[in-house]
Amino acid sequence: MKGEYEGERIPSQTLRKLCMDVFLKLGFSSDDASIVADDLIETDLRGVYSHGVMRFPILVERIEKNANEIEPQIKIVKNNKGTALIDGGNGMGQVVSHHAMKLAIDKAKEFGISGVGVFKSNHNGTEANWAMMALKHDMIGFCATTGGVNIMAPWGGYDRMLGNNPFAFAVPTGDTWDFPVVFDMACSIVARGWIVLAMKQGEELPAGWALDIEGNPTANAKAGYEGSVLPIGDYKGYGLSLMVGIFCSLLTGAAIGEEVTDFYHDFQKGQNVGHFMGAIDIGSFVPITDFKTRIDNLINFLKSSNLRGNVEKIYIPGEKEFEAYRDNSANGIPVPSGVLKELEALAKKYEIEWIY
Amino acid sequence: MKGEYEGERIPSQTLRKLCMDVFLKLGFSSDDASIVADDLIETDLRGVYSHGVMRFPILVERIEKNANEIEPQIKIVKNNKGTALIDGGNGMGQVVSHHAMKLAIDKAKEFGISGVGVFKSNHNGTEANWAMMALKHDMIGFCATTGGVNIMAPWGGYDRMLGNNPFAFAVPTGDTWDFPVVFDMACSIVARGWIVLAMKQGEELPAGWALDIEGNPTANAKAGYEGSVLPIGDYKGYGLSLMVGIFCSLLTGAAIGEEVTDFYHDFQKGQNVGHFMGAIDIGSFVPITDFKTRIDNLINFLKSSNLRGNVEKIYIPGEKEFEAYRDNSANGIPVPSGVLKELEALAKKYEIEWIY
Repeated sequence: MKGEYEGERIPSQTLRKLCMDVFLKLGFSSDDASIVADDLIETDLRGVYSHGVMRFPILVERIEKNANEIEPQIKIVKNNKGTALIDGGNGMGQVVSHHAMKLAIDKAKEFGISGVGVFKSNHNGTEANWAMMALKHDMIGFCATTGGVNIMAPWGGYDRMLGNNPFAFAVPTGDTWDFPVVFDMACSIVARGWIVLAMKQGEELPAGWALDIEGNPTANAKAGYEGSVLPIGDYKGYGLSLMVGIFCSLLTGAAIGEEVTDFYHDFQKGQNVGHFMGAIDIGSFVPITDFKTRIDNLINFLKSSNLRGNVEKIYIPGEKEFEAYRDNSANGIPVPSGVLKELEALAKKYEIEWIY
Repeated sequence: MKGEYEGERIPSQTLRKLCMDVFLKLGFSSDDASIVADDLIETDLRGVYSHGVMRFPILVERIEKNANEIEPQIKIVKNNKGTALIDGGNGMGQVVSHHAMKLAIDKAKEFGISGVGVFKSNHNGTEANWAMMALKHDMIGFCATTGGVNIMAPWGGYDRMLGNNPFAFAVPTGDTWDFPVVFDMACSIVARGWIVLAMKQGEELPAGWALDIEGNPTANAKAGYEGSVLPIGDYKGYGLSLMVGIFCSLLTGAAIGEEVTDFYHDFQKGQNVGHFMGAIDIGSFVPITDFKTRIDNLINFLKSSNLRGNVEKIYIPGEKEFEAYRDNSANGIPVPSGVLKELEALAKKYEIEWIY
């Protein structure tokens, strides 16, 4: 089940135009509208559909209900040499993250490494997109967020107390490979989106995905949706989620644990979502040409492994997304009929002529 | 099976004295002998027996066979503001890591965040110990290493091409809790040490731990030992291991992939093990008192979760190790008879009067 995603193929430019037009009608600056639209469309192009235009309707709904500021006052409230703390002014998480990552890159240029914490932000889309901003500067980028809804229990318990807390690293490669290494993961076995999909499709959950609200393992998708997701590696995934929370929220002043409100249901106030991101200047450690030669060689080496059973090839993190990018750029982004109806409704509501 | 570790209880000072005396006879300075001995003993006290005095014999054997330098020339070969690259001079990994983490802490004091890469080092014991050096400075510490033997395949393959690549974070807490948060994990489902133990005890492996040398899942401990360990969360654990490798080896010039030699069997040359470590000054982001209040509250919150089945309490990363520390400090470190025999043999060989 996981990985299947089908729908009418729509050119990315067409989808991007709808997002742009709606954001502009909502009052966003052209720059900020572009940042959010690009986050959604690039994510769909990379095949990470759970974070693409599927999320556009809820983002619009939150803006309509004044859950986010359209013209946020983004402020650096604390500035040390390699570090900064940013008040996101309850802006869109994408707008705030783009701003913060630019600062992180500037600081890494000067100090070799940087760490920028963000509070009073919101859901910031796809962590990989912010981490990848560092690539063209020959840097390793990283970005993490606490997310906006608690869905994981501390290991041994079954109350939803922690987010899925995704984090990403982006690493440049050399000329041998046409994709960078981009590793973007959340701390549960599967993203909750797949449980939602199983619920909608009336399918059972594989073992190990989720607990019901009483803490019992469940194959029932609805029970799993109401319960909690299970972390990878048992207590290890729980520990990773907690570490991401410590970086993104305790180090920044953002919400964590019982302070977290629900992205999908609470529109009354800013969520005070936290992020932590930064960059590492490769040239501050080793010559960039050496680095790129060695990472290309390492990829060659890994790909030379013998393959298990029906495996066709060894993938490097980010490679599948790169293949999806090529496919979706050429053939359009698949949009399921349910999502398409929501997009059409938004076009109509905002009186946008949208032909796909 | 996992977690059981039994043996005669020996006071930590007694074990430490043996390590110190042997290291001194081997020609180590008193400072360097203390660093390595403390790494072993503190690790045993924390109940992480796989990395305690059980490793002392192989460390001694490597020194005897000139695999490591006793008086290494540790040099900073590249020094930017927040970053540095250190040539470990083929010294003991613990000695080099202690040196590097001190530099990382100094840099974080000045720049808010730091990243120190290390090459030409060796097995550096327990990552948590170096991360924890940052705690008394009210910093978050982190440390990672590529380890010294490839035991993991890239996801989808079955050739041993990557290390288990452990990493650790240490985070200070406030007055409510008497332990810091210390998260130290490797990227496989279980440490290979447990597979070794199962093999010695003639027990079967639980499902999901290991593949045999032909890539098939195996319950046979010997087959699993000869094969590869499985990563947590399938491709996620593989990605994490690769990221640690990129930081510790590609960013430093240390060995990775096919360059890695075997800690247990190759004594001909330095292993060129890499580490990456650093520190983050909490006060550069938020007031340290606020941070400590909030982390204490978060721990309270997590511990208030309802408990699954036969779970007795919610543990915070590092808490079990803290409980072991109290127990082992008071009652002695358990040393299995096999390890004890090896220690006695070393005492005899080095003509050390050792009474336990």
